[in-house]
Amino acid sequence: MPERSPLAPTRFPDLPPIAGVRLAAAACGIRYRDRNDLLVAVLDPGTTVAGVLTRSLTAGAPVEWCRACLPRGKARALVVNSGNANTFTGRGGRKVVEESAKAMARLVGCHPREVYVASTGVIGQPLPGEKIVAALPAAVRSLSERAWPEAAQAIMTTDTFAKGAARRASIDGTAVAINGIAKGSGMIAPDMATMLAFIFTDAAIPAAVLQALLRASNERSFNSITVDGDTSTSDTLLLAATGKAKHKRVTRAGDPRLKDFRRALEEVAIDLAQQVVRDGEGAQKFVTIEVTGALSVRAARRVGLAIGNSPLVKTALAAGDANWGRIVMAVGKAGERAERDRLAIAVGGVRIAEKGGAVEGYDEAPVARHMAGRNIHIAVDLGVGRARATVWSCDLTHGYIDINGSYRS
Amino acid sequence: MPERSPLAPTRFPDLPPIAGVRLAAAACGIRYRDRNDLLVAVLDPGTTVAGVLTRSLTAGAPVEWCRACLPRGKARALVVNSGNANTFTGRGGRKVVEESAKAMARLVGCHPREVYVASTGVIGQPLPGEKIVAALPAAVRSLSERAWPEAAQAIMTTDTFAKGAARRASIDGTAVAINGIAKGSGMIAPDMATMLAFIFTDAAIPAAVLQALLRASNERSFNSITVDGDTSTSDTLLLAATGKAKHKRVTRAGDPRLKDFRRALEEVAIDLAQQVVRDGEGAQKFVTIEVTGALSVRAARRVGLAIGNSPLVKTALAAGDANWGRIVMAVGKAGERAERDRLAIAVGGVRIAEKGGAVEGYDEAPVARHMAGRNIHIAVDLGVGRARATVWSCDLTHGYIDINGSYRS
Repeated sequence: MPERSPLAPTRFPDLPPIAGVRLAAAACGIRYRDRNDLLVAVLDPGTTVAGVLTRSLTAGAPVEWCRACLPRGKARALVVNSGNANTFTGRGGRKVVEESAKAMARLVGCHPREVYVASTGVIGQPLPGEKIVAALPAAVRSLSERAWPEAAQAIMTTDTFAKGAARRASIDGTAVAINGIAKGSGMIAPDMATMLAFIFTDAAIPAAVLQALLRASNERSFNSITVDGDTSTSDTLLLAATGKAKHKRVTRAGDPRLKDFRRALEEVAIDLAQQVVRDGEGAQKFVTIEVTGALSVRAARRVGLAIGNSPLVKTALAAGDANWGRIVMAVGKAGERAERDRLAIAVGGVRIAEKGGAVEGYDEAPVARHMAGRNIHIAVDLGVGRARATVWSCDLTHGYIDINGSYRS
Repeated sequence: MPERSPLAPTRFPDLPPIAGVRLAAAACGIRYRDRNDLLVAVLDPGTTVAGVLTRSLTAGAPVEWCRACLPRGKARALVVNSGNANTFTGRGGRKVVEESAKAMARLVGCHPREVYVASTGVIGQPLPGEKIVAALPAAVRSLSERAWPEAAQAIMTTDTFAKGAARRASIDGTAVAINGIAKGSGMIAPDMATMLAFIFTDAAIPAAVLQALLRASNERSFNSITVDGDTSTSDTLLLAATGKAKHKRVTRAGDPRLKDFRRALEEVAIDLAQQVVRDGEGAQKFVTIEVTGALSVRAARRVGLAIGNSPLVKTALAAGDANWGRIVMAVGKAGERAERDRLAIAVGGVRIAEKGGAVEGYDEAPVARHMAGRNIHIAVDLGVGRARATVWSCDLTHGYIDINGSYRS
């Protein structure tokens, strides 16, 4: 077990109960010993659901299952295991998902397609589904409204800390809650970045509206982070809304009554996404990259990700070197419009390059102090437009190589 | 100075004189002490030239200069320095290029736009052009037809060995020679992969034909390698043909009399490109990735590069782990058509995955032996078409992080 990331929050946040959501963690011994590796959640009847899944063309069997379930827009349960991704496991892998969903559906009293399944861990090894099925009845008996920390722990793989976030919002004067948990620390890249994230709310929102809200939040959170540019085969983000809150139904994503909910949902998603980066394999520094002056948000994000993914930038950051020449290189390779002679770069708030060259005589001392810290801020202005985006990444250290040279993930 | 790469060839190859090409190396003290850092080449009148330059949008001043020179199709000299890339150096950087070209043009007696300039090294620092200009006269006095090893050494930066390749070919019954030198070991990625490569021949080929031949060779050589996925701001590949060989002029690239020349040119380019990978920063293993069954050559190459660029694949290779699950992941993220349930993967000639799952009971012993070696072979069949491509890469080791955490490049 690697040490807790130096970038980890001091503690797991308080996640309040959410009416209509009950959780349990259990140990079914798929890969890990002496720890929980199974999360089940049961959702009250009437719960709507939205999801964003990996765009990988070699997606795992659970991802395919979720994709087939989402058009129904209803969820009654969630079954997640860690230690085995059930990916590239052929017909057998698909059968395991089906049987897990059917077994859970019998216990809950719902249609199997209302049971969402996710798996994370090693690729290409058969998942012993019978162990999951056998563990479900006891797990369902131990469901609790308060098992958020245990739920977040059960889905960890190379994670060094459990990830959770909570916010409150008001819809039309009625208070609603949003809780989220996530896991992920390697194989983290855009196209749905985290491996697994589950967000729950008691708001009453139809599935189609929920889907639009989730997609927008996802762009500015999980799709704006990178650890190593490798897209997982299992990336799954689900948002379940139990509808227990007593506000009037909303019927469209643009409804002004959803403004505060959108804000809170985005905050939960960004908080979780940042925690995934803070637990990036081997990460010693948390990097915020702000790109401004782009032609479009998409272009700004692409440039930010090119910087955040560059091994040369990331190794320089690990060494505490404000090597802005490598940032120039990354901007150049991103393939988005930029004007070399208008490009400006600031590190830690100090402008160090502009108008196609270094800023003569800039004060290196505050930059060096900033680079020695845990939180690095890079600002790049492309000088061609007015759009902006923020991307989060981490440095590339010996720890990344140690972890990935030894762990079969 | 890091140790010589364990993947290096045993020695620098014999590069014969090429009629019309004379070279010299010199020390002008730009960044390195006690070594040559300047290469000049003088080409006889009548020399045609072709070039492929980085697509980076933050390309260096020398790249812009070469791009402006190429339409003339004529070259009389080459001036290359190592230690400073003259990139993101503003107006001053452009002036340095102009003055170097003018000074060399006066010495050779040609138009400045017939002098090609390239620089490699640190980005964003002013290049002291006066040092180059001052060193040119003595360099020109010491020109020699035999200074190939010295030329290859003078352009090195983090390279641990000098890179050269030579082939002979026949055009219409007349023997011609092709020599090439290259440098590069980091910031290596497609979109023109090596930082600098210069190829010379005594063949008599018009510039437009030369350009078509070079472009085709480049696709299968420098654009088929990757070390770290980072595209350099200085990538420059030039091919100069002195026309001293006594064969009849050829007027189009498709001319069947050029078949053997095309073969030899591609061999030189691939040889040099492979040497760049073999000197990949920190590389301990040379990896050949053969992708078959693709819908197009371009698709096959993209999938190969996705595998060759994946930090998770590369760290597994460094650890000697035939972690084919990560290869599946990389295929999935490449964005090219693939059929998960038809995908087949072989490592070291042993089929280990097919039809969407692991090959049951495959013999792990020969795979483990293969993975422990220096030369790794990965074959991936996508199962959707008949096109193929080969890509070369290396592993990702602690050495890469050591080098790039300390060297300002």
